[in-house]
Amino acid sequence: MRDFLPEQAKVMRYVEDLARKIAKLYGYKEIITPVVESYELLAVKSGEEIRERMYAFKDLAGRKVALRPEFTASIARVVATTLRNEPKPLRLFCVGSLYRYDEPQLGRYREFWQSNFELIGSNKPEADVEILTLTNDLMQMVGLRNYWFKIGHMGILRGILAKEGVKEEKQNPIMQRLDKKLWNEALKMLEELKVSEKCLEVLKKLIKIKGKETPKTINEIKKNVKDYEEAIAAAENLEEILNLTFESGAKFEVSIEPAFARGLEYYTGMIFEIFVPELEIALGGGGRYDKLIELFGGEPTPAVGVAHGIDRITLAMEKQEIKPKITKEPFVFVIPIDDSLKAKALEIASQIRLKGINVEVEVMGRKLTKALQDADRKGATHAVIVAPKELEEGKVVFRNMQLRIQKAVEIEKLPNEIQKDFGDT
Amino acid sequence: MRDFLPEQAKVMRYVEDLARKIAKLYGYKEIITPVVESYELLAVKSGEEIRERMYAFKDLAGRKVALRPEFTASIARVVATTLRNEPKPLRLFCVGSLYRYDEPQLGRYREFWQSNFELIGSNKPEADVEILTLTNDLMQMVGLRNYWFKIGHMGILRGILAKEGVKEEKQNPIMQRLDKKLWNEALKMLEELKVSEKCLEVLKKLIKIKGKETPKTINEIKKNVKDYEEAIAAAENLEEILNLTFESGAKFEVSIEPAFARGLEYYTGMIFEIFVPELEIALGGGGRYDKLIELFGGEPTPAVGVAHGIDRITLAMEKQEIKPKITKEPFVFVIPIDDSLKAKALEIASQIRLKGINVEVEVMGRKLTKALQDADRKGATHAVIVAPKELEEGKVVFRNMQLRIQKAVEIEKLPNEIQKDFGDT
Repeated sequence: MRDFLPEQAKVMRYVEDLARKIAKLYGYKEIITPVVESYELLAVKSGEEIRERMYAFKDLAGRKVALRPEFTASIARVVATTLRNEPKPLRLFCVGSLYRYDEPQLGRYREFWQSNFELIGSNKPEADVEILTLTNDLMQMVGLRNYWFKIGHMGILRGILAKEGVKEEKQNPIMQRLDKKLWNEALKMLEELKVSEKCLEVLKKLIKIKGKETPKTINEIKKNVKDYEEAIAAAENLEEILNLTFESGAKFEVSIEPAFARGLEYYTGMIFEIFVPELEIALGGGGRYDKLIELFGGEPTPAVGVAHGIDRITLAMEKQEIKPKITKEPFVFVIPIDDSLKAKALEIASQIRLKGINVEVEVMGRKLTKALQDADRKGATHAVIVAPKELEEGKVVFRNMQLRIQKAVEIEKLPNEIQKDFGDT
Repeated sequence: MRDFLPEQAKVMRYVEDLARKIAKLYGYKEIITPVVESYELLAVKSGEEIRERMYAFKDLAGRKVALRPEFTASIARVVATTLRNEPKPLRLFCVGSLYRYDEPQLGRYREFWQSNFELIGSNKPEADVEILTLTNDLMQMVGLRNYWFKIGHMGILRGILAKEGVKEEKQNPIMQRLDKKLWNEALKMLEELKVSEKCLEVLKKLIKIKGKETPKTINEIKKNVKDYEEAIAAAENLEEILNLTFESGAKFEVSIEPAFARGLEYYTGMIFEIFVPELEIALGGGGRYDKLIELFGGEPTPAVGVAHGIDRITLAMEKQEIKPKITKEPFVFVIPIDDSLKAKALEIASQIRLKGINVEVEVMGRKLTKALQDADRKGATHAVIVAPKELEEGKVVFRNMQLRIQKAVEIEKLPNEIQKDFGDT
């Protein structure tokens, strides 16, 4: 696990703030769920790989708990219990840290951060579209370039396997292999399950399909799955979602991949991940999960959501040399020139802060020259030097750090003077 | 552990934002440290009680780890390692969740949130003053009333016990008892350690001292500890801190309590906690710890810091009926009156959001009346109804939800119209 030093932490919070802005613009309300949850809850649909890599332990009362490896299970729990009588749709947002005991690699860490959006209660394609669009908006706000959405539909794969008589529990390990692009392993498992030759042929073809144009690619998929009604319906649902997305004016690249699966087992419909050329790992991903809330004891409730990897997005920003857009502000360093003036320096600092100006006070008891050097190093725009002579007239020495010029200024006029001088430079 | 639903989460983030604002005003840079840390690191100076109540476990590699019960150990680790060559002072801020397996009670939960400020590198009283003042500023910004700072100095108690020959390891369990106001237990432990009669008498007197006026109370303390040089020096340090605080114009109530101790073992100087009459638990607390960074392998580095209980502050707000000051904004609900208009509705929503206006789109496929009811329930200020007739003229129906009046408006003029109409009502 990592520490984020100030420069990195600033970028993390910047992306979090943008996600929060998106949540507000789209009407998603934040909820905060605990980091520690019941192991059973987190394990039930997380998929084999995540299950094995959870930070699981017994608490002091002997309950088996784990650190959450993702948000959706917790949110589904809240929706199925506390919020069960809330009118739908519910738009829920959360943000925080998650935990998986993976082998650390570029962009993959044992503690990671996500912003998470869930649109609960609608089975309509416009709900899927909203999740895609808000994700695209976040990428746009961050300023990322050349990203694309890898997009598929769990109904295609599950529709085929269901018709071949493969039960859901047997489908799951196959989905895990497909998620990891272990195509041959997946096909071998299916052979062992004695699916039809046709099924294997269809899957081999689907694995090869990666299309950028909706009608063309969807037609190719439909042609291939023509004997599997549920898979056709899934392809049509995906088509409807994509058409609505682009008709509504959203602009982003897609790669439609019908053999794309995700490790999490709760997905039932459209699924997607976002990539940039500079990184192998996805910046985020999501999809539709229409059965999970029911599984946790709620009413049957369709839902669709997305998680954005905050630390991964900051990594993509670094790779694409994107700096956070942060407004420059004045930053003042207040220095008493001797110990008898400390109280006055602190008082002046408080008065300036009341006007919303950022102020540091010299607290090391250093001489003026040393303190000014420190102010410079820290990027102070101005220094306020509290000295006896000027103070007698109710004034302090006000210094522009960049221009290295200074003058005496009345204490009451300082905040205005700082704002004015900052605006000028 | 708890879920925070939207109304509660909003207040939590409000307090976090205020803490973040204070950090910026005072020049504290955020760092993010992991929730999971080495057990040894967290245990070394956390004190007996916290040590026993940590969420400790072995990770998949067999390392003993724990969920952090407080921030200071992690920050001291970073300062002693990654940041060891950074010029001092360092002002570090962090915010996040912490974990203690306590018996849940009002204001005390197993997962809790703190904002944490550490001023590292200065042994001067103005550093202590800054930590007190920024804490007071936070209480002021939140709008809390009738709060007071309980304040003491570890040097008083430790100075007395050291002179009596009680080693630090033996002092610690006594501090734990004093922290919990188990006066008799503490005195009994001291009797068993065979401290002098005079020492017991002094402590009994100190336990009774609770003063609001600096010179009077400090003099009373000094008179009582007159045979203990280190304790006198500590009382004088506390006096200097308090004088500087109030001379610099800060205004808050204090209760000076020389027998006040804190459970964390790393404190060496001034310590404090903040209370409101409505709650028994402290809203926050902190103090000076001049030896901790050294203990973690850093240079000898004096430091002083504070942690503010974010969830406790929200509880105090509730008790004092303080609502977050949140600016009202327009909130628009976009409704397509039939399925063929969905893409257009999504497009209009995107265009309005681009102007920074919060928009929800109808995604349940409901009829207009039902959708409008939902918009009402959610507090939408306006609805935009996308209907074929108006659309032919490039217009939509724009409805003021409160006044229940509507008119046709050109799509391009919508954002302006919304802002204008919102400003008028």
